[in-house]
Amino acid sequence: MVIFQPSGRRGYVSRGKTIKEASRDLGVDLEGLCGEKATCGKCRVRIEEGVFNKYGIESKMANLTPISEAERKFFNLQQERNGYRLACQARIQGDILVFVPEESRMGKQIVRKAPTDRAIDLKPAVKKYFVELPPATLEEPLGDWERLQSALSEQYGVGNLGIDYQVLFALQGVVRGGDWKVTVSVWMDKEVIKVESGFVEKGYGLAVDIGTTTVAGYLCDLTNGEIVATASMMNPQVVYGEDVMSRISYSMSNKDGLEQMNRAIIDGLNGLISEVALQAGIRGQDILDMTIVANTCMHHIFLNLDPQYIGKAPFTPGIHHSLDIKVRDIGFKVPPEVEMGFDEETAIKEAKRCLNCGVYAQAEGTEGLETRGFGLRISPGAYVHVLPIEAGFVGADNVAVLIAEEPEKQDSMELVVDIGTNGELVLGNRKKLVSSSCATGPAFEGAQIRYGMRAAPGAIEKIEIDPDTRDVRYQVIGRVGWNVDLEAVGAKGICGSGIIDAIAQMFKAGIIQPSGRFNTDLETPRLRKAESGREFVIAWAKETSIGQDIVVCQEDVRAVQLAKGAMYAGARLMMRRLGAEKLDKVILAGAFGSFIDKKSAAVIGLFPDCALENITAVGNAAGDGARIALLNVDKRKQADEIARQVEYIELTLEKDFIKHFTHAMHFPHMKDAFPQLKGILPEQTSG
Amino acid sequence: MVIFQPSGRRGYVSRGKTIKEASRDLGVDLEGLCGEKATCGKCRVRIEEGVFNKYGIESKMANLTPISEAERKFFNLQQERNGYRLACQARIQGDILVFVPEESRMGKQIVRKAPTDRAIDLKPAVKKYFVELPPATLEEPLGDWERLQSALSEQYGVGNLGIDYQVLFALQGVVRGGDWKVTVSVWMDKEVIKVESGFVEKGYGLAVDIGTTTVAGYLCDLTNGEIVATASMMNPQVVYGEDVMSRISYSMSNKDGLEQMNRAIIDGLNGLISEVALQAGIRGQDILDMTIVANTCMHHIFLNLDPQYIGKAPFTPGIHHSLDIKVRDIGFKVPPEVEMGFDEETAIKEAKRCLNCGVYAQAEGTEGLETRGFGLRISPGAYVHVLPIEAGFVGADNVAVLIAEEPEKQDSMELVVDIGTNGELVLGNRKKLVSSSCATGPAFEGAQIRYGMRAAPGAIEKIEIDPDTRDVRYQVIGRVGWNVDLEAVGAKGICGSGIIDAIAQMFKAGIIQPSGRFNTDLETPRLRKAESGREFVIAWAKETSIGQDIVVCQEDVRAVQLAKGAMYAGARLMMRRLGAEKLDKVILAGAFGSFIDKKSAAVIGLFPDCALENITAVGNAAGDGARIALLNVDKRKQADEIARQVEYIELTLEKDFIKHFTHAMHFPHMKDAFPQLKGILPEQTSG
Repeated sequence: MVIFQPSGRRGYVSRGKTIKEASRDLGVDLEGLCGEKATCGKCRVRIEEGVFNKYGIESKMANLTPISEAERKFFNLQQERNGYRLACQARIQGDILVFVPEESRMGKQIVRKAPTDRAIDLKPAVKKYFVELPPATLEEPLGDWERLQSALSEQYGVGNLGIDYQVLFALQGVVRGGDWKVTVSVWMDKEVIKVESGFVEKGYGLAVDIGTTTVAGYLCDLTNGEIVATASMMNPQVVYGEDVMSRISYSMSNKDGLEQMNRAIIDGLNGLISEVALQAGIRGQDILDMTIVANTCMHHIFLNLDPQYIGKAPFTPGIHHSLDIKVRDIGFKVPPEVEMGFDEETAIKEAKRCLNCGVYAQAEGTEGLETRGFGLRISPGAYVHVLPIEAGFVGADNVAVLIAEEPEKQDSMELVVDIGTNGELVLGNRKKLVSSSCATGPAFEGAQIRYGMRAAPGAIEKIEIDPDTRDVRYQVIGRVGWNVDLEAVGAKGICGSGIIDAIAQMFKAGIIQPSGRFNTDLETPRLRKAESGREFVIAWAKETSIGQDIVVCQEDVRAVQLAKGAMYAGARLMMRRLGAEKLDKVILAGAFGSFIDKKSAAVIGLFPDCALENITAVGNAAGDGARIALLNVDKRKQADEIARQVEYIELTLEKDFIKHFTHAMHFPHMKDAFPQLKGILPEQTSG
Repeated sequence: MVIFQPSGRRGYVSRGKTIKEASRDLGVDLEGLCGEKATCGKCRVRIEEGVFNKYGIESKMANLTPISEAERKFFNLQQERNGYRLACQARIQGDILVFVPEESRMGKQIVRKAPTDRAIDLKPAVKKYFVELPPATLEEPLGDWERLQSALSEQYGVGNLGIDYQVLFALQGVVRGGDWKVTVSVWMDKEVIKVESGFVEKGYGLAVDIGTTTVAGYLCDLTNGEIVATASMMNPQVVYGEDVMSRISYSMSNKDGLEQMNRAIIDGLNGLISEVALQAGIRGQDILDMTIVANTCMHHIFLNLDPQYIGKAPFTPGIHHSLDIKVRDIGFKVPPEVEMGFDEETAIKEAKRCLNCGVYAQAEGTEGLETRGFGLRISPGAYVHVLPIEAGFVGADNVAVLIAEEPEKQDSMELVVDIGTNGELVLGNRKKLVSSSCATGPAFEGAQIRYGMRAAPGAIEKIEIDPDTRDVRYQVIGRVGWNVDLEAVGAKGICGSGIIDAIAQMFKAGIIQPSGRFNTDLETPRLRKAESGREFVIAWAKETSIGQDIVVCQEDVRAVQLAKGAMYAGARLMMRRLGAEKLDKVILAGAFGSFIDKKSAAVIGLFPDCALENITAVGNAAGDGARIALLNVDKRKQADEIARQVEYIELTLEKDFIKHFTHAMHFPHMKDAFPQLKGILPEQTSG
């Protein structure tokens, strides 16, 4: 028996499983950023005294494999004596009671992928036709399908159609149930994917953006293009690794790794379908179309394609082009029969009842619904359209940004920056477009930062440091106002935008030097020397919910320098390739791009010089692109074309890459950068 | 607990199930021809004394529902006292011990669907290409699928291809596993359905003929057209009803009836796939294509289409055209991954081991293999091509006969007769073709005949009656020679060809009159008056294995008259429609047509007058047609065209149908019929 505290979840797991594996089995969300390699130290747990220790021995570790050297690095002797372990390393040998400290609990992230208001021409892939058939007679006993074909051809001029096999099952009953009047949904003028009795006006489509961390879905009315419901969730794959590389590594080091992650995202999307359908008050089977955008790794895992080859040179993907796949082929749950009106009604009713009585919320949203068999199911004949990818590290999400922003139609030199867990860059105008990706590492997402965390309640997201007193004030997600005005702050860590702020403010306040090193001459209790090196205190222990000072350490600064250096050098090399002297416009796509402080980004030098007023955040442009492709099939064609037009630059192969990269790591990266910021920056020592 | 004797099969079943249902659950094969309607009386069982009777009461029926009036009709008082019941009616209320008498046990039918030697032009739907790809490099990191597409286009000029989603899964591994050399299987010049590492020469296809009673499969080498294995089995749906109408009725009166029957045939075909693959010594996944022919009802059940509408006016089918469906969509078992070399090797090894040690045979052939998880699986990307149907009662099997026989290319007036459980007729020449079907009833298959049975061991299949002494000699399936020369005969019943012989011989010997009535003036102990009317003894009890005299009764004669009357009248009305005076040629298709005595068929008047030498049996032409369509895609097109050209005649709507039908019931039907038989027929009293 394994018991997790404070959640109280418990159950039996096989001997030899790690605590992390047990946590997954028992539904306990543990942090973890390194793909269970004992390198991030985020999954610390404390083994409580052995209430279940069957030996009666006064040792907390009797029922675990011994602590390894790799683990030991993360704990001092006191912590080791107190029973601390890394959940990903300690293997279960018997009954244990595990306490999960607050900092190791995975917060429910605040999903910031709101759709942007955009005008979209309506030309959906699925069209509905209302048809009246001549009833069968003894003189003309033509098959129902042939009867429907000729009616569609006569009444609408739609010919040469196929029919989905599962729709064919139900055809006879549906046609007779509607007294020979039916509504037919036709996909791409090619295939009948649904037939309903009588007249049915509405049909819906779901646009999905699968991010490494967050998945967002937009349910749209295909008859007028309106968004009727929006839902988002954590990518359920995060338990297998925080970033693209750790998921690739998980898939390579675990026999069923790919299958597990594929199942996780498909199951998650099944829940998302239920959620948007419930929100909009429609039946799942009224969803007739779906588009998917994702980075190349998420794209591969979603398609159940082995991502290992995109993780190593020459970074070859399995497929570049867009794909249309039957939802049931890809593993989406579909109703056992096309027409299951009654069952779905029951499901909706039950779901609403649960929502009202709170059971729904308790059962963790739609997951609970799924578990109890009340999930709403997408129309089984529907196709999912997966947008094309550009390269091993420039994915369908980037293509979606391009069809949303259309830099290929502009005269001005535009840089599109999509900062997710990976950095993706597109530069150019109507003459030419180039793209590249940079291994920014997960620093901008709060990972590999000592007190880094995702944008969840308790995360410090905005920071100001007084340049004279070096005193700090900050704001946390979930509370309104500055910390100094709050009674209880409850800070838990620092998220991506907070880190950018912290580094920019520390630089402006002279706490860190242009080289990135701490200025050891400063006198402030916040800058101190700890066992592991110098660190700067952002929040004192009393202001936190974790009982520790939240600090930025030298390694944190270094991680941000690496990340921003890669971004900056990438943009510079792309400009060199296009012969561009300067940027006319910077477009920040992605949720992160919408929340960072533009000035802070400029101060640390995230991208080359550009007038502040020409830097615009466009929100979740990838999600918008998914929606655009959902509502307009011409845009799908455009996506395939642009994905092949954009020339991918493998930055590491570019001449002088290392030199550029090293240069760009400094603050500010260039002597002449950001003239508009002159005066607000301290004296420069290098450039 | 229910125990069946003599098989000894036992198990617990739910209270309220019929003995027939219990027999299905426990794997006991009981006869039954009426779809469990208490009208055929073939499922008689005897309830043995209650060793399990928990009441200790001296009644055999305590644990069954009481006998009904419908059942009682089938038993005399003695039998009722001895514990006889109809298995389809008696419902289980507690423990029982059931004895299944020999005549109620279903014999393993002798499947007589051998392929015929025909010259077929080779133009298969699936073609194989060996391709060498340029390996991916950093400079050219194109996706694997795009890389394969351009190689196929450059090396073979094959372009504009799609790829099966499950093949895409495996592509990256297969390409690298073969060191960038692969063999690609392309379906219909449209879609890549398989990619294998290295050079793979052979590919196979399976042609299947689903009869109401028998299913036959022909495994062909797609590279040279040769048949490499043949297998057949009983249609596993027979437990749900013997003929088309009882299966339709089963699907209507049982909620999951259609699903059960669909599952039964699909599971059966999964076993057939294993069997032919094992026979040929190939892997299941080397089977890359499949064609299906079937009558309209079997076609619908195979496709999971509700057959109820083809069972009642206006007899509208769900679909007429041919269909191409992914094997996995239709429910064929496919390996979990495309490349599972090892697992399939194990399966083959295990299967061979079982075959050698006899376990395989014990486990009832491939079913046993399936149960134990060793079934060989068809290639998951493969399509199954289902041939088109002509009308509600003229199915894809008839279309297959047409592409095999090509009457539309002949000058002579040809009648194609396919006598299966249903009678299907096509008449015409290059000018015009008409088709019709007649409800012959299952008499020709041995059903609805008192001692009728299928063509299984023990069935009387050939009969001769001395016209003077009225003595009888006969041959039974499974023994060589006439009964009179055998020590042990062990006759069990009469099969279809036996019945035709019996009636023809009885007519020629004057035992029955042209009207079909028994000639009561005859003096022979074989012609006697029983409780239920007059009957003629074919085999004495001592010559049988059932301990009863095997007789032909007045109802049997009537059933044959109805069947042959329908066939004859149908042919006549079709001739009238075409203005044809006489037949140039009669083609007997179907297994039954190959085994009946042509002279006997002529004597009873199964079809209008035709010179005996122009009556030819072509064997399982439907199966041959399936094979032709498998090996030549042009023939698939031809099938769709001919299926629409043939004009279907609904006989019951034809003018004077009843008059023709009534006339045709007489022996011989027409005064001037069969001039070549004159002299061997007795004096005629009506015409």
